[in-house]
Amino acid sequence: MTMVQDFSGLEAALGDVSHALGETFDALLPVPESDDGRVVEAMRYALFAGGKRLRPFLLRATADLFGVSLTSSLRAGAAIECIHSYSLVHDDLPAMDDDDLRRGKPTVHKAFDEATAILAGDALLTFAFEILSDESTHADPRVRAQLVSVAARASGHHGMVGGQMLDLAAEHKQLTERDIIRLQQMKTGALIVSAVEMGAVLGKASTHARHALVAYARAMGLAFQIADDLLDATASADEMGKATGKDAAAGKATLVSLWGEDAAREKAEILTDQALSYLKEFGSKAELLREVAQFAIHRRR
Amino acid sequence: MTMVQDFSGLEAALGDVSHALGETFDALLPVPESDDGRVVEAMRYALFAGGKRLRPFLLRATADLFGVSLTSSLRAGAAIECIHSYSLVHDDLPAMDDDDLRRGKPTVHKAFDEATAILAGDALLTFAFEILSDESTHADPRVRAQLVSVAARASGHHGMVGGQMLDLAAEHKQLTERDIIRLQQMKTGALIVSAVEMGAVLGKASTHARHALVAYARAMGLAFQIADDLLDATASADEMGKATGKDAAAGKATLVSLWGEDAAREKAEILTDQALSYLKEFGSKAELLREVAQFAIHRRR
Repeated sequence: MTMVQDFSGLEAALGDVSHALGETFDALLPVPESDDGRVVEAMRYALFAGGKRLRPFLLRATADLFGVSLTSSLRAGAAIECIHSYSLVHDDLPAMDDDDLRRGKPTVHKAFDEATAILAGDALLTFAFEILSDESTHADPRVRAQLVSVAARASGHHGMVGGQMLDLAAEHKQLTERDIIRLQQMKTGALIVSAVEMGAVLGKASTHARHALVAYARAMGLAFQIADDLLDATASADEMGKATGKDAAAGKATLVSLWGEDAAREKAEILTDQALSYLKEFGSKAELLREVAQFAIHRRR
Repeated sequence: MTMVQDFSGLEAALGDVSHALGETFDALLPVPESDDGRVVEAMRYALFAGGKRLRPFLLRATADLFGVSLTSSLRAGAAIECIHSYSLVHDDLPAMDDDDLRRGKPTVHKAFDEATAILAGDALLTFAFEILSDESTHADPRVRAQLVSVAARASGHHGMVGGQMLDLAAEHKQLTERDIIRLQQMKTGALIVSAVEMGAVLGKASTHARHALVAYARAMGLAFQIADDLLDATASADEMGKATGKDAAAGKATLVSLWGEDAAREKAEILTDQALSYLKEFGSKAELLREVAQFAIHRRR
């Protein structure tokens, strides 16, 4: 596990999905010419900000296990990316994390203005559900309703938004290991898990297969978050394209500050092994999902 | 149409739906005891802020034409009220309309804080789609997917959010009659129309009946907005429980400022007559929808 790995195949596959997703957004979200076009411009700015588009990739790689059509995967992936992007736009706002840069570029409220950023976030979140409930995403209405349900549960007050609330409250209190894990699982884990689960929903996976994939995503998501905290603690702002060391500066406990870097790295490896164990039943078809789990903890940015 | 009308029956019916909706929210959204409970408290604060809950009422009154169960109507009504409430929470933010009071009470960012208000709005919007996609709302997944689709289209960048964007841009430009009508139909009309349309979706209405109900809601919604602008222009802050005369102070054109009060009142009456004409085919079953249309233009607050 500690040898240097070659992720060029994975990176090419990530690039392919990202490129196809860009075309999907271009088709779904053309810029209108009237005054309300400004909110669409801001939505597109957020969606084309240079992210890895990991969640749509996970959704696609999972759906691929079951032979789901590319159109269905890309549309559902576009929806999950809209939710992820909205969360970044709102998290960056002055009243929240107050970030001026993301991936080296001005955040939406800096490039546009605060009101437009709030509205663009709202519109991205809403658009996600419009996409998921549309017949073009899947012919079976039961699948569409389930996609909406999985995405909404992961994103709302029991999930991502609740996690962000916990994160804001964390600046004023001492968190235990259990608190931090719960926070991470809600704030970032839930949406990663939902991406994989939506792939399983599209594929009409058996309950058993769906549970295995969710378990994979839970373990992988937490490993991913620990790796992110390790990068925040050790990488420079230049390498990351955003401010680093922010957690420490804000006095926020992370699993890395709690365990120390070496132990955190070890736990991330253990979680990755666990994640891989859940993929056994899918054989060679799950190779990309395996590589994602390894990439999560070995990436440099 | 100009005689004083007795709306006591309608007001009692509105009160009944509002009360039942309160119980629905209590069941759907109990306050958890952990730190993320704060966002749920803020969601509840917004939902229990004393609004008329007109949109759930419209949904219920429409669904009643087709004998839809009370549970389905109330759950879908709760969802539409979550969307309406989120829009008010975000519209009141300092970066948007910057309002300290709504219905005589501190707005969410005043009672809590700005970050919590942003998150509570996000969570309310998300929760709407969680409710609509849940099997308890309707047994038929096609109905659930359609409810999501109708609500999302009405609320996003082609609808409510786009209208709010137009409204923000309106402070810097001269609007024509056509611009203002488009703005109003997106900003407030679309969600009112969607409430009625969701009632029709729940009732599996024929395409013809659904179109008639949507046409009713479009005309009624615009009349309602003109009446709102008339109240803003003529009522005192004390009567309204919120700041009035704000449109004029912000130099925003409304149909009232464009047409004058008398002509605006007359157009609202004409729109109401149009709205009523679309209800003919539903006979006496549509009495509450008729009364809503008349109440919209005759109310005093």
